[in-house]
Amino acid sequence: MNPSSDPITPDRLDATFAALADPTRRAILARLAAGEASVTELAEPFAMSQPAISKHLKVLERAGLISSGNVAQRRPRRLEAQPLAEANQWLERYREFWELSYLRLDGVLEELKAGQPTPARNRRRRPPA
Amino acid sequence: MNPSSDPITPDRLDATFAALADPTRRAILARLAAGEASVTELAEPFAMSQPAISKHLKVLERAGLISSGNVAQRRPRRLEAQPLAEANQWLERYREFWELSYLRLDGVLEELKAGQPTPARNRRRRPPA
Repeated sequence: MNPSSDPITPDRLDATFAALADPTRRAILARLAAGEASVTELAEPFAMSQPAISKHLKVLERAGLISSGNVAQRRPRRLEAQPLAEANQWLERYREFWELSYLRLDGVLEELKAGQPTPARNRRRRPPA
Repeated sequence: MNPSSDPITPDRLDATFAALADPTRRAILARLAAGEASVTELAEPFAMSQPAISKHLKVLERAGLISSGNVAQRRPRRLEAQPLAEANQWLERYREFWELSYLRLDGVLEELKAGQPTPARNRRRRPPA
């Protein structure tokens, strides 16, 4: 099984990207990548109240980026891989675009270093696959 | 030069992910990956007014995902690669995580097919690099 076997819906991508657009939520995901953690453990490194952290956890949970375990009352949160893989899959369509763009920039910089005139940049673009 | 030579600030990632959290904005980026386009050309495929499209373009421009050329009054928009490469770089830290997660799932499915009991899942997690 791999992420491409399940079509990515626009709604899921909307929720994933919106959830990732916050530094606290990204830090929570980084913490959970090291292992499950309770809400108290997750709140510790932040100068934030537990209700504020809980709000962020709700956004992450609705986006499917985390889930809650059922260990007594601890309910540890864990990271879920699928939405991250899907967001990555969407961005990968543009890999050729940014790689070409860096190659062009390298060429321009080389020419500037060599003291040669810079030719008009080749603006060829390719659509994502 | 490559994207990692320039440290990614949290603000830039916030703006990029927020800009990507909308299907119209993602469709505009896909169109621009095929080549520059004017606002009129960009508005065409959408059942949307030009002011509505202009709002989306402003969000994309503030995030640095597009820029405007200066060809007479046409001001064609073009896709900028850097923020997409940075968002991808952030997600790549989790690649090992989702790849392990798919491997575990494959193992569980294989065992179910073979009619064997499923052992407790190994919840080993590794922090992103």
